[in-house]
Amino acid sequence: MAPDWVNVVAVTAKGQVVLVRQFRHGTGQTTLEIPGGAVDPEDRSPLAAAKRELREETGYAARRWRRIGVVDPNPAFQTNSCTTFLAEGAFPAGDADPDEGEELEVVLVSPGRLGALVRRGTIRHALVIAALHWWRIGEES
Amino acid sequence: MAPDWVNVVAVTAKGQVVLVRQFRHGTGQTTLEIPGGAVDPEDRSPLAAAKRELREETGYAARRWRRIGVVDPNPAFQTNSCTTFLAEGAFPAGDADPDEGEELEVVLVSPGRLGALVRRGTIRHALVIAALHWWRIGEES
Repeated sequence: MAPDWVNVVAVTAKGQVVLVRQFRHGTGQTTLEIPGGAVDPEDRSPLAAAKRELREETGYAARRWRRIGVVDPNPAFQTNSCTTFLAEGAFPAGDADPDEGEELEVVLVSPGRLGALVRRGTIRHALVIAALHWWRIGEES
Repeated sequence: MAPDWVNVVAVTAKGQVVLVRQFRHGTGQTTLEIPGGAVDPEDRSPLAAAKRELREETGYAARRWRRIGVVDPNPAFQTNSCTTFLAEGAFPAGDADPDEGEELEVVLVSPGRLGALVRRGTIRHALVIAALHWWRIGEES
């Protein structure tokens, strides 16, 4: 059974979103994503996993955390879920510590540019786009 | 290798979105989704697959079709893509013809209610939420 996943919309005090540019072996391409990954058995909670992933992939920590949504990555075949957290007041807290073989680069973008990055196909990961949708509908409500 | 997928944001002449309520064996739950599925070997194109899925799952056809986005369902593990089509002028064209074992019910909702259905967790499928995001950023551009 696939583990549950988490991802993080991390926003700095200046309102910029923390993205990671990453080489994905599945598609053989470089992608632009938000930080995220699997909930490990050692993680006490999805929130703990989200904090760990943000720190490992970007070196960032954040002052305020809030769960903003849960999706089923693929309910036809999988039973796992992906929980999205909003991390506000994000700041560089140290060096990133990516998994063996991960090549990551931190990219800060303003929220107004996200739509264009999705439209242009630079952001193509379904779970990332779903997370951005969660964030957006949350900002409106 | 997983086949490519398609899904469809189908909008009627009155502006309502065509959703399907479906029992998903993966999660053992009833879900609310937009029509969609795998591109079969017999489909001449992703568009042909999208038209077939809309018709099979809902009995609807549509007057105008346009590709609005492509996502990677899970670039960490899979190489397939999911293409979203916008189908405008959707209308009931006959009986639905679901696959053996699929139990589907057509539900028409106004676009203004979609945000609440996502927030409430009634719509949880990541690829559906990604498709709604594509539609939304397209409406703005």
